[in-house]
Amino acid sequence: MLVVFASAKLFSEVCERLRQPGIVGEILAGVLIGPHVLGWMHPNEMLQILSELGVMFLLFRVGLEVKASELLRVGGVALGVAMAGVVVPFVLGWGISRLWGEPRLESIFTGAAMVATSVGITAKVLADKGLLEARASRIILAAAVIDDVLGLIVLAAVSSMAKGQVNYLELGLTAALAMGFTLLVATWGTRTMRHMLPRLMARMSAADGQFTLAMTLLFGLSMLAVYAGVAAIVGAFLAGMALSESVEHRVLDLTDGVSALLTPFFLAGIGLHFDTTAFASGSALWLTLTIFVAAVISKLVPCALAAARLGLRDALRVGVGMVPRGEVGIVVAQIGMGFGVMAPGVYGIIVLMSVLTTLVAPPMLQWAYRERK
Amino acid sequence: MLVVFASAKLFSEVCERLRQPGIVGEILAGVLIGPHVLGWMHPNEMLQILSELGVMFLLFRVGLEVKASELLRVGGVALGVAMAGVVVPFVLGWGISRLWGEPRLESIFTGAAMVATSVGITAKVLADKGLLEARASRIILAAAVIDDVLGLIVLAAVSSMAKGQVNYLELGLTAALAMGFTLLVATWGTRTMRHMLPRLMARMSAADGQFTLAMTLLFGLSMLAVYAGVAAIVGAFLAGMALSESVEHRVLDLTDGVSALLTPFFLAGIGLHFDTTAFASGSALWLTLTIFVAAVISKLVPCALAAARLGLRDALRVGVGMVPRGEVGIVVAQIGMGFGVMAPGVYGIIVLMSVLTTLVAPPMLQWAYRERK
Repeated sequence: MLVVFASAKLFSEVCERLRQPGIVGEILAGVLIGPHVLGWMHPNEMLQILSELGVMFLLFRVGLEVKASELLRVGGVALGVAMAGVVVPFVLGWGISRLWGEPRLESIFTGAAMVATSVGITAKVLADKGLLEARASRIILAAAVIDDVLGLIVLAAVSSMAKGQVNYLELGLTAALAMGFTLLVATWGTRTMRHMLPRLMARMSAADGQFTLAMTLLFGLSMLAVYAGVAAIVGAFLAGMALSESVEHRVLDLTDGVSALLTPFFLAGIGLHFDTTAFASGSALWLTLTIFVAAVISKLVPCALAAARLGLRDALRVGVGMVPRGEVGIVVAQIGMGFGVMAPGVYGIIVLMSVLTTLVAPPMLQWAYRERK
Repeated sequence: MLVVFASAKLFSEVCERLRQPGIVGEILAGVLIGPHVLGWMHPNEMLQILSELGVMFLLFRVGLEVKASELLRVGGVALGVAMAGVVVPFVLGWGISRLWGEPRLESIFTGAAMVATSVGITAKVLADKGLLEARASRIILAAAVIDDVLGLIVLAAVSSMAKGQVNYLELGLTAALAMGFTLLVATWGTRTMRHMLPRLMARMSAADGQFTLAMTLLFGLSMLAVYAGVAAIVGAFLAGMALSESVEHRVLDLTDGVSALLTPFFLAGIGLHFDTTAFASGSALWLTLTIFVAAVISKLVPCALAAARLGLRDALRVGVGMVPRGEVGIVVAQIGMGFGVMAPGVYGIIVLMSVLTTLVAPPMLQWAYRERK
């Protein structure tokens, strides 16, 4: 734990001095201490748990600063951004992979792995820079959450294809449940909490009762989210958002503590997956480069176009904000490996694409937002 | 995680209403959801990790409120308390077990398992009631830390006996290293931090830099403590104490958050080990009762006597404060099982003794401290 935490923070400090986002340093620290460079650390179960908790608390903390009403207000634009950012990367990833002569199912999984934006990375950059209030940031967050829900539906679809048969009814139900849960909590969560929290608090005698209730809601909604077919982090974000208008400042402080401790494990954990096997042959290297460039462009351009009515600057911010894939792409590729439809070489390429988009996005975001000042 | 956290907090709330310490509720919640009552939860690796982190942060947080100078001032009395509280339980545990006709090595391990006070439990009760400032509390904390160091030396000794040969030179070196490390950090830690922290802070540009440094020190000293042969939690406590005079309030808030999240896992985790196999036969039941009563008396009386010069009330508080055995006794019994010198039945009895002393101590402490008001 010491090695991961201290090296992540050291590199973060170095990056801050170089006027780069600290988050890049924390991921690079993971790359450096990971199995393919220094070999000090290998992904293990404990780091996995800390990393998952880290991204949950990160999203919960971001949710606490976001009002549901503001997110719902930008819902229309965000839906367009999310849809564009799902369809184009999927088709492009699929197409490139097919052109390279890869098998059909593997190509479909490659496309699916390019779909989901890592809302954690973008949210962390925006939160660190104090930019969560900006209009473009609201749209990015809303779009990233929708994108996450859509990405999980795509994953469910390609998984059932890998199993051999697609049950459209089941798939439709999954999609409806996932979307229904997200919409319901986003719409009613805040009101319910504003109503219930004071009543519950009045009955509690223990110290830091609000924090206890907040944690219970966080774990509860994260678990419900998983049952509803969406990611635990979506539940965590929704829990934060539901509480954003009713909790006292003390809860923010306490959550900051957990988040400050655990987030480095999430960030360095992404870096730990960095894999050099993709450099093994010239052909693989070209495919990696092509996939990486396609991953950046296929989010940047369609998402920016979908947000074009906001003007060039905000559209660009939205486009850039949707670029990082992070842990989600890695998870999809792992599932593909699990079904035996994805070769280890292609897995390495997807992982590299995920890590690289995560590394380039923060400086790009910083640049896109800096213009304004 | 939801089940453990929510049930711990629910029971804590119930206990608070019954005017009992909330900590008892959190342990009882573990007993209830554990394998022998409802069977919802079994000890697993993830809970183990969260529980160990929980007690580390608990001790770190308590350390942050304790000045090293005040602890060293009561060092003489505390040393006497710790010594008395190591020798008497060991001899009594050994003797009872021998009288019951158990084998020699098993009896020695039973004695060793009765030695170490769980500083976490007492510290949590005192911290919750805001009693860390009291003179008796200082002595309990200092004695519990010394007791922990002595307990680990006893464990090293009985472990080498179980292996068949006692290397006195090695044992002496282990003891010297453990005591040297603890004394060194306790004596010089605060001064070093008061000197270094402002300099380091002046050079850091990242947000919440003090928290980052505090976490690095916490993990670093915990790791060093393990290398020096003492428990990680002793390192965590020393790290907190070293920082107690130099950190800003924000670090306390952030640490509170981590501690509030993780401590329930530590407390419920103790309860999860509750085991009913000790009730299997009449003889085992009698042995359990005898061991339990001996465990309470063998700490309460000698520790109170060793602190007699403070007057009856403070002596009683010190005696009661040293009673809980908690996780330490369970760990010793597990090691005994690992060496194959402790039968599962006796293991169950030790675990029950640990859980029970942990349950009775908080109300007794509350009562011992209440008199004054």
